[in-house]
Amino acid sequence: MEQLTVIKIGGNIIDDEAALATFLASFAAASGKKILIHGGGKLATKLAAAMQLPQQMIDGRRITDAETLKIVTMVYAGYINKNIVAQLQALNANAIGLCGADGNLVLAHKRTGAAHDYGFVGDIDDVHTRLLQRLLDDGYTVVVAPITHNGKGQLLNTNADTMAQAIAQSMCSHYEVSLVYSFEKNGVLRNAADDATVIPEINLSAYGQLKSEGVIFAGMIPKLDAAFAALSKGVKKVIIGNAQQLSQLIEGRTGTRIVHE
Amino acid sequence: MEQLTVIKIGGNIIDDEAALATFLASFAAASGKKILIHGGGKLATKLAAAMQLPQQMIDGRRITDAETLKIVTMVYAGYINKNIVAQLQALNANAIGLCGADGNLVLAHKRTGAAHDYGFVGDIDDVHTRLLQRLLDDGYTVVVAPITHNGKGQLLNTNADTMAQAIAQSMCSHYEVSLVYSFEKNGVLRNAADDATVIPEINLSAYGQLKSEGVIFAGMIPKLDAAFAALSKGVKKVIIGNAQQLSQLIEGRTGTRIVHE
Repeated sequence: MEQLTVIKIGGNIIDDEAALATFLASFAAASGKKILIHGGGKLATKLAAAMQLPQQMIDGRRITDAETLKIVTMVYAGYINKNIVAQLQALNANAIGLCGADGNLVLAHKRTGAAHDYGFVGDIDDVHTRLLQRLLDDGYTVVVAPITHNGKGQLLNTNADTMAQAIAQSMCSHYEVSLVYSFEKNGVLRNAADDATVIPEINLSAYGQLKSEGVIFAGMIPKLDAAFAALSKGVKKVIIGNAQQLSQLIEGRTGTRIVHE
Repeated sequence: MEQLTVIKIGGNIIDDEAALATFLASFAAASGKKILIHGGGKLATKLAAAMQLPQQMIDGRRITDAETLKIVTMVYAGYINKNIVAQLQALNANAIGLCGADGNLVLAHKRTGAAHDYGFVGDIDDVHTRLLQRLLDDGYTVVVAPITHNGKGQLLNTNADTMAQAIAQSMCSHYEVSLVYSFEKNGVLRNAADDATVIPEINLSAYGQLKSEGVIFAGMIPKLDAAFAALSKGVKKVIIGNAQQLSQLIEGRTGTRIVHE
């Protein structure tokens, strides 16, 4: 089967113009079919502050109320997505930007049953791969913003790590898929403050151990959960690492490789 | 040749939730291949005000400085485009939203040589129809936001009437194209304050006459210039009229028809 690389680029890189430019140059240069999923960065928070909208938080997580949904739709699907597309075009990658509503790409439902109401947050039900396959076959590079829809006219804010996982696993019936989570750190670190302490490989039992030791905590837990879920659904390779070393990451020469056994 | 309908929906309708919903229902129900180009509405101005950004105006036209470009990219290519797409999806139209940077759809250059510097405003050089043709052939309805790019990484704010004209005429080698400019008025009016005074047909000599009489003025002039330019480049039919009567407009039973002779 043909190879497909699905790359998630984390928010911190998006906030850093020079780091983003370096990343996009490596991304544009990477060979083969590829899909980029981007997070949001701090621009949405800044914009809400500029508009003096109070942000509701529960346990450190922002509640996506109607005004916040408007802002994340503008920032993620508008500003960030289209600027990445324009920059990739300048790098001779024929990029096309989509959100989950476009072509009914990612269908989701508003999260229910959680301890708190997180507002207009979408949990993914289905990825429709037809449009992605067509665009990839036609030579386009697809750039996806983490906004989904419920098929009834409602846009929903969706976690970009989960979006990358769902898209990667949906493509496994047609491609041999690698999933790369790239961000500002060198990988999963034994000491979160020391970029030299990258753990080169983590399997499921090591993951349990590292969680119980508190080495893996906070935002790394959902990322690793997504990584293991992707592997269990047919993704061949998951790597977590530094967006500034994308080509080495794709080749598996740096970062943390997530493996089943 | 197969028919293609290119419809521009004006800003005032976008600001009116109920009017937009009515329009989108008719648009989704219209048969055949179709492309929707939307304007911006007042949301960008409101957002700039909420952020307390001063808007620079010259002769009633907003200057697109860097901050304004950010806002129009967010509002046009993000909020408005994706909400229209989600609403069309709910109406069983498989919509996909694009701006001019996506797939290198509309290439433009920053306006130069004007009496004033309007900032990041793009004048169109080229429309690349390959992506549009492919999406239409695959059964998608394309929704285009009036943001273009210069191929060097710079997004540009572009007039939506011109965008509709450029896209309509570019598709003439593959389709028999009708172009509909729909907005909140019943057509080109003899008396701008009276919606009952629709002029049913305007040809080039009548246009000259109506301009010299001051019947056609202000924002209607660039719209009619775009209409005549489209006709001269192969568009078969141009109609201007009320977005709330879309099916009658498409059938040519209402509104103002623009004709060469």
